Amino acid sequence: MRIIIHGVGAIGGVVGAALVEAGQEVLGIARGRMLEAIRARGLTMISPKGRVTVDLPCVATPSEITFRPDDVVLLCVKGQDTESALADLRAAGMTDQPLFCLQNGTANERTALRYFPNVHGVTVMMPATYLEPGEVITHGAPCYGLFEIGRYPQGSDADDAALKEALDKANIATFVSEAVMEAKYGKLLMNLGNIVDAMLPLDADKPRFTDRLKDEARAVFKASGIAWRDTGLDDPRRKEFMQITEIDGTPRSGSSTRQSIARGAGSVETDYLNGEVALLGRLHGQDAPLNARMTELAARMIAGGKGAGEMSEDEMEQVFSA
Amino acid sequence: MRIIIHGVGAIGGVVGAALVEAGQEVLGIARGRMLEAIRARGLTMISPKGRVTVDLPCVATPSEITFRPDDVVLLCVKGQDTESALADLRAAGMTDQPLFCLQNGTANERTALRYFPNVHGVTVMMPATYLEPGEVITHGAPCYGLFEIGRYPQGSDADDAALKEALDKANIATFVSEAVMEAKYGKLLMNLGNIVDAMLPLDADKPRFTDRLKDEARAVFKASGIAWRDTGLDDPRRKEFMQITEIDGTPRSGSSTRQSIARGAGSVETDYLNGEVALLGRLHGQDAPLNARMTELAARMIAGGKGAGEMSEDEMEQVFSA
Repeated sequence: MRIIIHGVGAIGGVVGAALVEAGQEVLGIARGRMLEAIRARGLTMISPKGRVTVDLPCVATPSEITFRPDDVVLLCVKGQDTESALADLRAAGMTDQPLFCLQNGTANERTALRYFPNVHGVTVMMPATYLEPGEVITHGAPCYGLFEIGRYPQGSDADDAALKEALDKANIATFVSEAVMEAKYGKLLMNLGNIVDAMLPLDADKPRFTDRLKDEARAVFKASGIAWRDTGLDDPRRKEFMQITEIDGTPRSGSSTRQSIARGAGSVETDYLNGEVALLGRLHGQDAPLNARMTELAARMIAGGKGAGEMSEDEMEQVFSA
Repeated sequence: MRIIIHGVGAIGGVVGAALVEAGQEVLGIARGRMLEAIRARGLTMISPKGRVTVDLPCVATPSEITFRPDDVVLLCVKGQDTESALADLRAAGMTDQPLFCLQNGTANERTALRYFPNVHGVTVMMPATYLEPGEVITHGAPCYGLFEIGRYPQGSDADDAALKEALDKANIATFVSEAVMEAKYGKLLMNLGNIVDAMLPLDADKPRFTDRLKDEARAVFKASGIAWRDTGLDDPRRKEFMQITEIDGTPRSGSSTRQSIARGAGSVETDYLNGEVALLGRLHGQDAPLNARMTELAARMIAGGKGAGEMSEDEMEQVFSA
């Protein structure tokens, strides 16, 4: 089995480094300065266990890959980049190899099924950060992360078992599930606060806003007939396998959305988080105006408004009460 | 009411010209040589009634538009361009104005609902062709086309009634439906043959292949719980309102997919036609290998294989029997 990681960012970087460290054959697809840095100096992963630098072979695009029957692809790009990533993979020759979506949101698996027959979901619980080109960090201990994997739309198969074995060896505690999407909808509830986390100062009272986004989403899930399982800090597996720990000198830098904004990325994944709730609400007659407003807020911010942490609680309250 | 037409190609061109001819305020969003030609010489529409050239104001991108509350947007781009068109419209300031999807396939409306709350579907029966920059043709008579419109996912409202009135005045026979998606699924069945039409010579025996694609799709629709209504030549409204007629010197140039390939477009909509059937089949446990193969065929062709009409029936049979 060769594991291809499409998108070597925070999550893809930690997973890639951990797999290489465990002796697994891995190939990365990376961009720009990340690609240059890895080729020049290797990929460095910082974790509560210390610092390790691995040699991760990388290409810039899927077109440089000659696909093999034993390839497994881990999709680690943001939701807004999923469709072009899938088209590139197919154009490069990928056919029925298993594709695992290690992405936030619940739309990627459905999109992937338009291109490929063998699609799997992965619920990623991993406090990972992209520090700088060539350097990523996870604050997870004793395991780097805690994953739940399974076939989409449901069930599990030998591909899930094989990837679980590889990830377990790489110190990422992995559980195969017959209903992985239930966990991904639970994770989606947590990610609804990403945009709030991104816009407010780090010490703001975020639950004041995120709780309202989650309540609205739960009503939408119920109206849509969608089952979900909480995957937050209350998950009993968290205590045993993966707790968020302090690492001297390297503070956590917030949600993936905050990281994107702080890096000046031209788009954020809000359309696939809060936007998924807005979409489901409109589809099933249970409106979700607060989550819809979060997607508009993200779009305005991208268009040249406030940066990460530059919005006050009062300003956010105005958006919520509009 | 101002009608904004996003995508002035064959369909968008005929609809835009017909509306302007009827005295309606229209604004087009056009690209490249089409935009240049319209600005230089106006937009010419050929129909069984003759030839007319209208002055259609056009911009290159939504960012040039100051949106008004009375705007109505007709989305006429191909399925693979829907998501970027929606993001551009939102970034330009569109909010809750009605958006009508005049597109083939059944995925666009759902995608639009992620961005906008007020989404409508349109089943387009219009034998339109993009002849050259600034010139389009419809072979429909006595009406230029026959449309069915309604709110997505179901129902109808005052926006549908208003657009129906404008289209009827513009010689496009329009019917408001409470279940427009049923008609769009029926139209999707017809469009499954687009890729076959594109690849085979014009005089080939196409039903030999398209009938198998449709049979497979009907089984998928049944397994998916999707209702559909046939919208083909058997539709009783066709006889009264819109028949395909000959126009001297201007032969029809085949399906929209064939037109895309013949123009050398870098992508085709097969992923949103046959690919929709493949996706639904995978989602609901009713595989659709023939339709899936059509998406692979289109991807290979785009990557540099055969051009429009360059595949023989024997070669197509090999793809079907693989």
